[in-house]
Amino acid sequence: MEKIMNHPETIVNDMIDAMVLAHPNSLRRIDNQMIIARKEQPKGKVCIISGGGSGHEPAHGGYVGKGMLDAAVLGEVFTSPTVEQIYTAIKELDNGAGVCLIVKNYTGDRLNFDMATELATAEGIKVEQVIVNDDVSLDDDEDTSGRRGIAGVIFVHKIAGAKAEQGASLQEVKEIAQKAVQSVRSIGFATSSCRIPAATEPNFTLEENEMELGIGIHGERGITRQKMGSAKSIAQQLVKAILDDMLLEKEAEIALMINGMGATTKMELYLLYKEVSELLTDRDINICQSFVGEYMTSLEMGGASVTILKLDEELKALLNATSEAASFIVR
Amino acid sequence: MEKIMNHPETIVNDMIDAMVLAHPNSLRRIDNQMIIARKEQPKGKVCIISGGGSGHEPAHGGYVGKGMLDAAVLGEVFTSPTVEQIYTAIKELDNGAGVCLIVKNYTGDRLNFDMATELATAEGIKVEQVIVNDDVSLDDDEDTSGRRGIAGVIFVHKIAGAKAEQGASLQEVKEIAQKAVQSVRSIGFATSSCRIPAATEPNFTLEENEMELGIGIHGERGITRQKMGSAKSIAQQLVKAILDDMLLEKEAEIALMINGMGATTKMELYLLYKEVSELLTDRDINICQSFVGEYMTSLEMGGASVTILKLDEELKALLNATSEAASFIVR
Repeated sequence: MEKIMNHPETIVNDMIDAMVLAHPNSLRRIDNQMIIARKEQPKGKVCIISGGGSGHEPAHGGYVGKGMLDAAVLGEVFTSPTVEQIYTAIKELDNGAGVCLIVKNYTGDRLNFDMATELATAEGIKVEQVIVNDDVSLDDDEDTSGRRGIAGVIFVHKIAGAKAEQGASLQEVKEIAQKAVQSVRSIGFATSSCRIPAATEPNFTLEENEMELGIGIHGERGITRQKMGSAKSIAQQLVKAILDDMLLEKEAEIALMINGMGATTKMELYLLYKEVSELLTDRDINICQSFVGEYMTSLEMGGASVTILKLDEELKALLNATSEAASFIVR
Repeated sequence: MEKIMNHPETIVNDMIDAMVLAHPNSLRRIDNQMIIARKEQPKGKVCIISGGGSGHEPAHGGYVGKGMLDAAVLGEVFTSPTVEQIYTAIKELDNGAGVCLIVKNYTGDRLNFDMATELATAEGIKVEQVIVNDDVSLDDDEDTSGRRGIAGVIFVHKIAGAKAEQGASLQEVKEIAQKAVQSVRSIGFATSSCRIPAATEPNFTLEENEMELGIGIHGERGITRQKMGSAKSIAQQLVKAILDDMLLEKEAEIALMINGMGATTKMELYLLYKEVSELLTDRDINICQSFVGEYMTSLEMGGASVTILKLDEELKALLNATSEAASFIVR
């Protein structure tokens, strides 16, 4: 399948223009930078900035809007945003209340957000970082840079954004975002590969009837490559992997997200939702909020991820608060 | 790519259960029928019922909710819903104010919605039908059953639903829906095929660097099969096909939808949006509302469609009215 594009080199730049064109009342582009920001920035509010490589749409530009992110800083496809872009976004958006950066745990993202934080801090801007590492497919103590951040980051965006909108301090926003990080777990799988626009070959290969469990959102290696199973058996594996890592007592309240990686149909995502939700309900876990759709994709990769966010009254209220972000509207 | 499912025979049935499980506060299933309905049906309101084959998710179940559809009647994948199911939905939902059926122009759908209308009318229920035929890739006078209904139907759902929510009469709802039908045009293209869950072979085949212009949402033949072009050249073809069929004077106001067919990334949909919107703006056409995403898919087919709805003040207000449908939330 060929891609709908003009030139691979301009694809992210054009997409940023397109998003602002499509949502002119809520979004703006900062100069010609790779930054999508809220059209109107309220005074005195803590700013929430996230971002990362492109190719995960609607992440991250779709989550910019009142009640969620103030800006998304974008890199090229599957590439971290540069220090300069992140620094520019911080400088541009801060209005004295400080900036909370929500960063997925990848080496490149960590490094660049760190350096931008240092630069901004040196200029007297209050900056805090919250690192999201929800992917249970890697052990935390492994000889790696730790667990990856995947679709769980969207719940962190939503919760931090809602808290900031209420006028909370930078410290309060950071604390609630960290609580969300501690309460969220995800795991994904791929049923087919994707291809970076500038590449001629797919990122990896899977046989027609194979799936890879625990794969990352850039096609990073998973736990196992196995024969494609039924929706029920996949759900069992995913739920077990998450619950082995997360204490969910009876009557626990959760939000559940079934996220499509790109090519998988919404019909299949709903089928997976059914199996996952039945397994959780069998354990007397209460699903308070459900999200089924494409939230954190990996270009046109086939597959899905499951994210569970453990709720308390505060997190529940923040998740339910209104949001005007184009890809996460809450009434 | 294998599908995430248990059995091809139960896929639609399971999906209906899943949608109601995922949205328990807004949706209900009527008995064990293939019908997704609003949880609470207001008294005295005209009911809006639509539906069609499955495999187009989020159409049609995702458009059920306050301000949009009262029910979606579903068939198996790419198969019309049965007369009995449509009749059951009409009987179950009508509360005296009458029922407006929104039907896409396919032979099977037309036949079954017609027969159900006859049955219900014979019992004294007031039923009106509105036929949507927005696909400009077929000539109306061709030796076919006329133009197909594709993504434009979603605008018709929204406008009829908003009008009914305001307490309009059946006649008023029918008239505004017909005005929407007269004001909407679409055309789509495919960059890769899809496969029905019960089948072992794809619905059709396209070479790696080919696209088919004017293809239907079930893979029906298009106008031409051609080498894949740039986003710009595709946009030119699509806009020309629509504007050749639709009088849009300078300063005309429109809503624009770029709809993904399934496997195409949101990044590409935004790129196409940019090209289409620039062509329209060059002609001094005003884009008042934009929609970029998957609204009327064809399983995991690659490609997209463009829909233009010409607006007046009334249509604009109805399109902007609040909606609680899971896949078309308007604040």
